[in-house]
Amino acid sequence: MMNERPHLPLFQRSRLNRMASSFQIAGVQLDIAIGEVQRNLARIESALRETAKHGARLTVFPECALTGYCFESLAEARPFAEPIPGPSAQRLSQVCRELDVFAVYGLLEADGERLFNAAVLIGPSGVVASYRKVHLPYLGIDMFTTPGDRPFAVSRAGELRLGMNICYDGAFPEAARVMALDGADLIALPTNWPPGAECTADFVINTRAMENHVYYAAVNRVGTERGFRFIGKSKICGPSGCVLAEAPHQDEAILYAEIDLELARRKRVIRVPGKHEIDRFADRRPEMYGRIAASG
Amino acid sequence: MMNERPHLPLFQRSRLNRMASSFQIAGVQLDIAIGEVQRNLARIESALRETAKHGARLTVFPECALTGYCFESLAEARPFAEPIPGPSAQRLSQVCRELDVFAVYGLLEADGERLFNAAVLIGPSGVVASYRKVHLPYLGIDMFTTPGDRPFAVSRAGELRLGMNICYDGAFPEAARVMALDGADLIALPTNWPPGAECTADFVINTRAMENHVYYAAVNRVGTERGFRFIGKSKICGPSGCVLAEAPHQDEAILYAEIDLELARRKRVIRVPGKHEIDRFADRRPEMYGRIAASG
Repeated sequence: MMNERPHLPLFQRSRLNRMASSFQIAGVQLDIAIGEVQRNLARIESALRETAKHGARLTVFPECALTGYCFESLAEARPFAEPIPGPSAQRLSQVCRELDVFAVYGLLEADGERLFNAAVLIGPSGVVASYRKVHLPYLGIDMFTTPGDRPFAVSRAGELRLGMNICYDGAFPEAARVMALDGADLIALPTNWPPGAECTADFVINTRAMENHVYYAAVNRVGTERGFRFIGKSKICGPSGCVLAEAPHQDEAILYAEIDLELARRKRVIRVPGKHEIDRFADRRPEMYGRIAASG
Repeated sequence: MMNERPHLPLFQRSRLNRMASSFQIAGVQLDIAIGEVQRNLARIESALRETAKHGARLTVFPECALTGYCFESLAEARPFAEPIPGPSAQRLSQVCRELDVFAVYGLLEADGERLFNAAVLIGPSGVVASYRKVHLPYLGIDMFTTPGDRPFAVSRAGELRLGMNICYDGAFPEAARVMALDGADLIALPTNWPPGAECTADFVINTRAMENHVYYAAVNRVGTERGFRFIGKSKICGPSGCVLAEAPHQDEAILYAEIDLELARRKRVIRVPGKHEIDRFADRRPEMYGRIAASG
C-alpha cells in the first residue's frame, strides 16, 4: 500500500491505510410488523442510531424490513410499497447524513403497476443504489412481485464495494459470484428465512464468503407472520468462511464485524509459502463454465 | 412410477422401482502410502470387497488413492503414474465384474509427457469414464500436473448419473453446477484435504448438495505425507444439504448412504403446498450469469 502512494506524507498514508483496510459493519436482526410501515421505519431509525454509536459505518437490515413479507395479494401489498427514492429513503437519508453512515434495508418498490422486492443502499448523500430481487421463490409477496430486471451490480459505500442480494438469491451461487468477480468486498443479504432455510443459514453463508473470498452478511428477521415463523440465525462470515458474528434463532439481535478491505481484495491465499498457495479467482477456468450462463 | 409403466407385471414394476429409486453408495476414508502403488491397490481392492458385501453399488476412494500426493517433482511422480486404462484399472475392473459393482478412485494419469491428477469410474465392463482435475492448487503434485483439458461430464454407473470432481474443484461452485445441470444425481469428490480445507469439509459439501439438489460424496484421506497431514472429515450429503454420513478427522472409516435417484431428479421442493414452493433449477436466471463464463 505504501509503495503505491509514495508521495503522500506519512500521516496521510496511514490515514488512507486505516480507511482503506478497516470498515465496521452491523446487521440488525429485527422483528417486523406486517403493514405497519411507520412503526418499522421508526425501529430501523432507532437501530441505525445505535449501530452508528458503536462505530458501524454500514448497517444491514432484513428483507422487507419496512413492510413485512407475507402479503396474500398484490392489492393487499400495494398500499405499503413506495418508489425509490420515496418517503422511507428520504427519512433514512437524513439520518445517514446526520450520522455519516450507510444503511441497506429491504422494502417493496412500486414502479408503475409493478412491485419489486427490493433493497436500498442509502448514505449521507441519499440513495446510492437499489437492487431488485432476481430469484423469486413461490412464497409470501414473491408470489406476486416482478422478478428483478437489472444486472447484479456493485456499489460504493465509502471505500467499501458492496453487492446486494436478497434472501433466496443466496441459494444460487451465481448471484454472489457475479458481484464478487466485479469487485465486491461484501455481499449484503437482507433475508426473511422461513423454516426450511436452515441449511442456508448453517452452511451456505460460510460457503459464499469462502468461495468468493469476500465478506458476507446475511441479516434475517425473527417473529411470525400469518403462520410463517422466521428463523433468525443472521450471520456475518469472513473471506476464509469463518463466522465473525452470529445471531440466535428467536431473538432480536445486533451483530458487528470488522471488514478488512485489503483482505477481501487479495484473492491469493498463502497457507504454506511456496508449498500451499491458492487463488480463488486466478485458479478459475471460465472456459469450462459456459453451461452455467446458457439458457434452458 | 407405476403409471408410467402400466404394462409390466407387478414383480417387474417393483423391481424397476427399487432399481430406479434406490442406490447404495460407500466412501472409503483411507490412509495412503506415497509411492507404494501395490500396497495402496491391495487396500482399495480389499475395501471394495467389504463395501460390496454391505450392498454398496458404487464405492468412492480418495484423490491419488493409488499413488499418494505430495511428490516434489514430475520426475519423482512419473514412475507411479499409468495410462487409463492401465494396470490398476484392469485389476479393479476384474473385481468390479466379480462383485457387480462400480468404483471411483484417484490416480496419476500418464499421457505422453504429461501427468494429470485424475479419477476413474470403473464397473463390471471396465473403465466407464475418467476425469482430469480442472482446478489445480499450488500444492503437492498439482504444482506439476497439467490442468484438466476436458469438459465436465456426467457418466452412468447403472441407473446412477455420476459427475466427478477432485478436491480443489469443490471450492468452485461452477464445477458441480455444470454437471448438475447436465443431469448428475451424485457428485463424487475424491479429495486430499490438507489443513486449511476445514471450511470446505464443514460447510461447502452441504452447500453444493443443496444448491444443486443432488447427492454429494466427498471422500478424503487421513495420515501424513512429508509434513502435510490430511484432515479426514469425509462426508456424504443429500439434496436438502443434510449430512447422511460423516467420518472422523483422524481415522480410517467407511461411510454408507442411500441415494434416492428420483429425489435427486425432482428439483421442485414443496415445503408448504401452494404457499412455499421452490425449484432449484427452474428458478435460475441464466441470462444474469454471463459474467461467470466470461474470461478475465
